[in-house]
Amino acid sequence: MKAFACIAAAATLMALAAPASAQFAKPEDAIKYRQGAFTVMGAHFSRIGAMVNGKVPYDAKAAADNAAVVAEMAKLPWAGFGPGTDKGGNTKAKPEIWTEQVKFKEGGDKLMAESAKLATAAKAGNLDALKTAFAATADTCKSCHDAFRSK
Amino acid sequence: MKAFACIAAAATLMALAAPASAQFAKPEDAIKYRQGAFTVMGAHFSRIGAMVNGKVPYDAKAAADNAAVVAEMAKLPWAGFGPGTDKGGNTKAKPEIWTEQVKFKEGGDKLMAESAKLATAAKAGNLDALKTAFAATADTCKSCHDAFRSK
Repeated sequence: MKAFACIAAAATLMALAAPASAQFAKPEDAIKYRQGAFTVMGAHFSRIGAMVNGKVPYDAKAAADNAAVVAEMAKLPWAGFGPGTDKGGNTKAKPEIWTEQVKFKEGGDKLMAESAKLATAAKAGNLDALKTAFAATADTCKSCHDAFRSK
Repeated sequence: MKAFACIAAAATLMALAAPASAQFAKPEDAIKYRQGAFTVMGAHFSRIGAMVNGKVPYDAKAAADNAAVVAEMAKLPWAGFGPGTDKGGNTKAKPEIWTEQVKFKEGGDKLMAESAKLATAAKAGNLDALKTAFAATADTCKSCHDAFRSK
């Protein structure tokens, strides 16, 4: 019984200590996951962009719905950048993601913060506030892409 | 002024009447979007599966977090199956999706309903309820894949 408890405790500790990449069977799965999350986020973000840039009429409900998805999606991709996921699939991720982890994490945190503000602004139904929050969020996309994504 | 109001009204009507596929510039974009949504959903669903099948220890919080993502993701991919998105990218989607729209929509609705139940069960923190809801959700995945996805 003592041995069993010990093994169970060790298994729990291992599960807690496991890097995010351990949630994926292969690096390719992690790469597909993070790309999927970015693709979905980008699609919804671009719909807000179309309103902000006057390409489609401003629709407060659509903006709020899309921004809510962006804010939720912004939390996800980071788990797909675990150790060993720099190769193994079709990826534009630069090695700097893994050599400059602090800066990369700051970028991810900033995206989450700005997209949460975007969701708040969209919910408030004010187009000017939405434009400001959209621009701030777009800046976080761009600065990370410039630093961490190959052309 | 009258002409402007008329054009603006027409533009609004067109935006409202536009099929979901109009939200994507190219069929390939819609295909990538829906595949991205399914990939993210599948990753989180499989983490619940690992707990349900005893491959990793049951963690009520992790199960609830993953199930919440599954329930949100389950709402998204359908917009990516608009008219004209049967071709134009690397897709396993069968033509039946567009020739049996009622049945396909029923499948999507069922996935949303079952994954909402999964999220509720996961939040309640009861492993047996989670197992039941997981199996029901997995059944909806399988029946749609059998009918609408090529091997």
